[in-house]
Amino acid sequence: MTTIDPHSALAALRGRFPVLKAGHVWLVGAGPGDPGFLTLDAVAALIQADVVLHDALIDDRVLALAGPETRLEYAGKRGGRTSTRQSDISARLVMLAREGRRVVRLKGGDPFIFGRGGEEAQALAEAGVPYRIVSGVTAGIAATAAASVPATLRGVNQAVILASGHAGAEHELDWAALARTGQPLIIYMAMRNIATIVDALRNGGLSGETPAAVIVAATTPRQRIVVSRLARLADEVELLGNDVPGVIVVGEIVNARERLLGLVAEAVR
Amino acid sequence: MTTIDPHSALAALRGRFPVLKAGHVWLVGAGPGDPGFLTLDAVAALIQADVVLHDALIDDRVLALAGPETRLEYAGKRGGRTSTRQSDISARLVMLAREGRRVVRLKGGDPFIFGRGGEEAQALAEAGVPYRIVSGVTAGIAATAAASVPATLRGVNQAVILASGHAGAEHELDWAALARTGQPLIIYMAMRNIATIVDALRNGGLSGETPAAVIVAATTPRQRIVVSRLARLADEVELLGNDVPGVIVVGEIVNARERLLGLVAEAVR
Repeated sequence: MTTIDPHSALAALRGRFPVLKAGHVWLVGAGPGDPGFLTLDAVAALIQADVVLHDALIDDRVLALAGPETRLEYAGKRGGRTSTRQSDISARLVMLAREGRRVVRLKGGDPFIFGRGGEEAQALAEAGVPYRIVSGVTAGIAATAAASVPATLRGVNQAVILASGHAGAEHELDWAALARTGQPLIIYMAMRNIATIVDALRNGGLSGETPAAVIVAATTPRQRIVVSRLARLADEVELLGNDVPGVIVVGEIVNARERLLGLVAEAVR
Repeated sequence: MTTIDPHSALAALRGRFPVLKAGHVWLVGAGPGDPGFLTLDAVAALIQADVVLHDALIDDRVLALAGPETRLEYAGKRGGRTSTRQSDISARLVMLAREGRRVVRLKGGDPFIFGRGGEEAQALAEAGVPYRIVSGVTAGIAATAAASVPATLRGVNQAVILASGHAGAEHELDWAALARTGQPLIIYMAMRNIATIVDALRNGGLSGETPAAVIVAATTPRQRIVVSRLARLADEVELLGNDVPGVIVVGEIVNARERLLGLVAEAVR
């Protein structure tokens, strides 16, 4: 059994950690779920924060990196708890910064990939609050990798589309146009609207036989992977329950899963 | 000045680091450049590796995380040095694993986003070598964030397309179809073929006035950001030099940059 001492190795990084100043806000991506996806800058953020405003679905082991003096505030918009309005979150970030706190806004995945980070950054800029974006591993790419599906594969695709299944009526996505690109789709927050999305993709010319997969709670102990076909996606989602967090991938790359599975090493933790 | 001790905070994670076993290979994403983007699992990989096969453009401070006993092998495909054939890299990974080494294949960005990780995973699976994918922060998303461009912004886009500008003649991308989706493009390895790509996007209906930006050597001390318009992209790239690593973003999201710039906090390291 290997003895691992992260401390000795991380000594090499000592002193290069970026400094979170009083009155500043960092918008930080926590990655898809498992704490192993945290970046060093995200760790630096948590270590220094006076206040952490966090989404739902952030692992307790991640929040535990904040010091005992750090105040944790729930500001999520999903899960069973009361949701917080986006404008309230932005206002809270501005207020805490003006009080001179070191503020971390901690989000699942990456703050700029369907994470509302753009709106928060804009609100901070308008209020004159200095901020920084700490990019994270986005959930869709990590989820497909966890399912042994490569988001890109030479000879199969030269692009991949990250799409939100949550699009409201006002700004509907042109799913048919996305389908006509011939490129695979990784769809975030797709569970509730999957039947509508599948119809639109088929209208764009995708065969019902197009390979597809649903990855639920990726990289967490509750992870589930269902490999299927486009025509059967709505049924698969109904079986899984549409209130769980899931990523859906549609396209030929899903077929690579069988060739990649081989002996995938289970991480021993 | 805040005193930061990553060691004390990381003590919380001690013992949860995943174990890289002898005879196993991990395909690890190192993120866009700056060591702060390394994930904890990537750090765990480097700490434990007997051999690290690394790409060009991996920061020396990242490689320094490997122990003094670890052998570093250059296996990159870019930069001024001799390039290595993909099949040779895969064969080398298999050989090292069969010798019972703990092997890390370290790539820029994410191994599954235009990183040839899919081919290496497939070769390892075929050879019966256990392997693991350690997802990383993909260069395109981090580069746009570093340029204060949000990859997604509510009210502007509900999807974002990651595309390779390096596509060969055999598997050309249908750029016009990508343009017709109305969604922004983040183009990797776009510098050499930019004139062809711009023509194809305009054929797909994109106006020459579409906002666009070039981000060179993102998150490194040599980072440069040029904000422009689609019609002028080829000229901008010629001025920057097409042999530098660059990410190009095309779409209305580039306009958000001005609203987001505000007081972007410079990281103090």
